[in-house]
Amino acid sequence: MAGAATNHRILLRGRPAGIPTPDLFEADTVPVQAPGPDEVLLETLYLSIDPAMRGWMSEGGSSYHRPVPLGEVMRGGGIARVLESRAPEHNPGDLVQARLGWQSHPTIPARFLQKVDTTRGDALAWIGPLGLSAVTAYFGMRDIGSVRPGERVLVSAAAGGVGQIAAQIGRIEACRVAGIAGGPEKCSFLRNDLRLDAVLDYKAENDLAAAIGRACPDGIDLYFDNVGGETLDAALLHLRPGARVVLCGRISQVNVQKPYGLRNVGQLGAKQARMQGFQVFAYNPRYEEARAWLAARHADGQLRQRLHILEGLHHAPAALGMLFRGENTGKLVVRVGG
Amino acid sequence: MAGAATNHRILLRGRPAGIPTPDLFEADTVPVQAPGPDEVLLETLYLSIDPAMRGWMSEGGSSYHRPVPLGEVMRGGGIARVLESRAPEHNPGDLVQARLGWQSHPTIPARFLQKVDTTRGDALAWIGPLGLSAVTAYFGMRDIGSVRPGERVLVSAAAGGVGQIAAQIGRIEACRVAGIAGGPEKCSFLRNDLRLDAVLDYKAENDLAAAIGRACPDGIDLYFDNVGGETLDAALLHLRPGARVVLCGRISQVNVQKPYGLRNVGQLGAKQARMQGFQVFAYNPRYEEARAWLAARHADGQLRQRLHILEGLHHAPAALGMLFRGENTGKLVVRVGG
Repeated sequence: MAGAATNHRILLRGRPAGIPTPDLFEADTVPVQAPGPDEVLLETLYLSIDPAMRGWMSEGGSSYHRPVPLGEVMRGGGIARVLESRAPEHNPGDLVQARLGWQSHPTIPARFLQKVDTTRGDALAWIGPLGLSAVTAYFGMRDIGSVRPGERVLVSAAAGGVGQIAAQIGRIEACRVAGIAGGPEKCSFLRNDLRLDAVLDYKAENDLAAAIGRACPDGIDLYFDNVGGETLDAALLHLRPGARVVLCGRISQVNVQKPYGLRNVGQLGAKQARMQGFQVFAYNPRYEEARAWLAARHADGQLRQRLHILEGLHHAPAALGMLFRGENTGKLVVRVGG
Repeated sequence: MAGAATNHRILLRGRPAGIPTPDLFEADTVPVQAPGPDEVLLETLYLSIDPAMRGWMSEGGSSYHRPVPLGEVMRGGGIARVLESRAPEHNPGDLVQARLGWQSHPTIPARFLQKVDTTRGDALAWIGPLGLSAVTAYFGMRDIGSVRPGERVLVSAAAGGVGQIAAQIGRIEACRVAGIAGGPEKCSFLRNDLRLDAVLDYKAENDLAAAIGRACPDGIDLYFDNVGGETLDAALLHLRPGARVVLCGRISQVNVQKPYGLRNVGQLGAKQARMQGFQVFAYNPRYEEARAWLAARHADGQLRQRLHILEGLHHAPAALGMLFRGENTGKLVVRVGG
């Protein structure tokens, strides 16, 4: 435990109005807490930075999670290494996945830890193509979206954490996949690295509905939406009969006072289409199914994920702002240790 | 064929802007057309007046139907009696269901007719609890809505053609059913005749969302929507986890230039809920399933339908306006003959 005597933490100090700013957080240090019976002391390796965290910061919390109390460690999930264990199922050196919080050396009851199978991938794989964003994309595309071979798929925020995986699942399932992203760099990644069939840079378009029509000339069977608002409204105009709209995220709407009013929902009736939201946590009993599928596709090289890694826990407070401004190029991750 | 030498018709003469007005139609008479081989001459008994007809009158038509050409007989479905048949499967005196058009004595190819089983109900039953509105409610509640016993159901336009049946299906399936309607007369019908568990008069409420909260104090598992717009937006605020929203109709939106912007669709994500539209015509191969179920419930007295019957084909041009202004008390029907 040399060098691990101090736990570096980042506490939530204020509630956001709009995009979260670094001044809402405060760093401190406390002594590492020795594990009690059935507890484990961990070294945080990577923290995942996700849009859902915005809800956890608000007074009301999100639908399924109470808000993070002011003055407490910011909630966040990631990958850690076991340093010291008083739980028989965890041994020093093991990798685990957990709600670690924004801290370098959490001490956590063993029942909150999920073991990481390193034969399937290393720590970076488990934050990326085997991580919770990827599991979210898996259930969104397959269970909620009922993706079928040969369909026309559109993914928004397609260069983001969930979007990259959703788009690749579409390709793996033999679909024609179009992706929406902001700026030439992300679009180039989607076109040249992920090999999507069509790419739309929303920042370069005045008429989003017309642009989606060009990117999806035969319409959309499955729209995987990470954005909401105007993008969703425009996509609804291009649904094919029997289409499914997967409401995975709504990053355009989480920081606004007045939500966008969707005018094209009537298309669901005209096209006999369905629109469905979900929370990945409800699929917890089936995570292993998703991981087995994702690991197999990762192993054979069909599935990967570009990460945007910020080096050091001190970057975490500014990371959420980057995410909501779309400044990350790839799934956003903070590297804490290891 | 005494007295049947003349076919009274109503032709479409103009395209509507807003709620259809009687001046868009013109009455004429033509000689009855003798049936050719495999054709049948019919006497129209009842015509059903439905919101979907508004779409058929427009330049663009509706999603699944081309527009009625100007100068042609207005499209409309109903129940008729066979007067003269050159098709072996139809005999004089038989009842049939068909797209008769707004005319007293259509001559129609036999392949477009559906036989009416009078052991299940008379002509009025076949326009009401066994008719296409009822079949629509059946598939909406059961297939699209996945209604389950004990659930909390909300139906809008619950005194209307489809709404009455949807609400009763909810009751038959052992659900707690709340209904929305406009004005004390319709609400009294829902409360005292259909015995709904809660009734909301939207015309008497300033805050629709709060009123739905009072009518559905434990939230909504299944919202059967015939209205769209503001009512749908308000209902979305009260969804329970796993809720289904059935988009059956959007009568509030079909005559407006600028559709209402839905602000609460994000609730689908928060509540892991789905919203789905449908067109009953897609269920054509399964109509018999619906009719068998509806006929059994009709026979044992669990299912009925209040009709609002206008006497005479000359009322048809004004009937659509009544429908969209909510002036009908019950499913709107024009009695033509019989």
